[in-house]
Amino acid sequence: MSVQHAPAAYTPTDRTVPTRARERAAYDRETVHSILDAGYLCHLGFVRDGAPVVLPTLYGRVGERLYVHGSSGSRPLREAGRQDPGLAVCLTVTHVDGLVLARSAFNYRSVVVHGIAHQVTDPEEKRSALDALVDHVVPGRAADSRPANAKELAATAVLSLDLNEVSAKARTGGPNDDPEDQDLPYWSGVLPVARAYGAPVPAQDLTPGMTVPEYLTSL
Amino acid sequence: MSVQHAPAAYTPTDRTVPTRARERAAYDRETVHSILDAGYLCHLGFVRDGAPVVLPTLYGRVGERLYVHGSSGSRPLREAGRQDPGLAVCLTVTHVDGLVLARSAFNYRSVVVHGIAHQVTDPEEKRSALDALVDHVVPGRAADSRPANAKELAATAVLSLDLNEVSAKARTGGPNDDPEDQDLPYWSGVLPVARAYGAPVPAQDLTPGMTVPEYLTSL
Repeated sequence: MSVQHAPAAYTPTDRTVPTRARERAAYDRETVHSILDAGYLCHLGFVRDGAPVVLPTLYGRVGERLYVHGSSGSRPLREAGRQDPGLAVCLTVTHVDGLVLARSAFNYRSVVVHGIAHQVTDPEEKRSALDALVDHVVPGRAADSRPANAKELAATAVLSLDLNEVSAKARTGGPNDDPEDQDLPYWSGVLPVARAYGAPVPAQDLTPGMTVPEYLTSL
Repeated sequence: MSVQHAPAAYTPTDRTVPTRARERAAYDRETVHSILDAGYLCHLGFVRDGAPVVLPTLYGRVGERLYVHGSSGSRPLREAGRQDPGLAVCLTVTHVDGLVLARSAFNYRSVVVHGIAHQVTDPEEKRSALDALVDHVVPGRAADSRPANAKELAATAVLSLDLNEVSAKARTGGPNDDPEDQDLPYWSGVLPVARAYGAPVPAQDLTPGMTVPEYLTSL
């Protein structure tokens, strides 16, 4: 499998064109990548015994390919290894950017990826996928941690998923209240929502005197 | 459909017992409810034409029943209305509480709900479900907004999903580094992650002089 040349936009398909609010959908690479790169938690859906399963997991992006990881014994990774040509998945990433107090709208950015996930068997691709995953969560961390050893690599499975059947969807701005509702005695507007990091908590067994690295304090 | 009497714990099934880290799974009602009540964004998975689909949406809880809403024209709600006895779904809620800098672990709380979703057709249940949904996102907001009118109710579909086949899973605490790794020159610990709200942004057409309600400033 070679990583394909990145198109300027993903081709819309029946699965990536929303049935509603089509004006909120986007297929250009920049939008999709920016939403993927702003997060690290995805929800991975697959079908098991005919029923849907959705599990949270970490992901990383290398060009037009996503990687998710897990224990070699975890369900989706076992399924992907068992199935040929791979495991049909839908990988979804969502950021809530604001609560829009009209009724219950919210400002969000989301990306939904459909496709076939493959288990990564090449040791070199697996190692760089794990580095990408760590750096996706905390940029700069991969270089500041011990590389995975053979035992850990064996216990860790990695799925790859190419960006192909992809869409982004976003809502921005304030409430869309009807004109006749503007004089009602209810507050209306947006409550911004963001991710916040607390002060780093050192491990109990951390070598005394070791300072918090810059890639954490700058987050 | 009557809401069943709530059990002290949900009965584990093949789908809710994890293949790994079983000690992190919980089935007691308090744990499951607390995770559900701490969030408002879920990822709803279902099968369409044999393939998995995962969409982000808002949810609310009333006792042992979850409600998700959407446009009457949206995919899962149309599917749930079309299928008898309902739509097989997997609804997942995840909170990231901290990044554990061992390699790429993270502290999280998640709930996965398997089951059959039904479209809510009873007008009274639909109205109270929408109120529960709004109050789940911003407690106190339902009473401080115009009730949905007939046109809006017709355009809005609500799915219900009973809490039955449910599990919670959580990781807490610091890194589990091997003893031989403790002297390595890498920082190790936890970076706390939380949700943060910004200052409320009034709608452009808000009546001048209207103050931000207490249920927002107290969030």
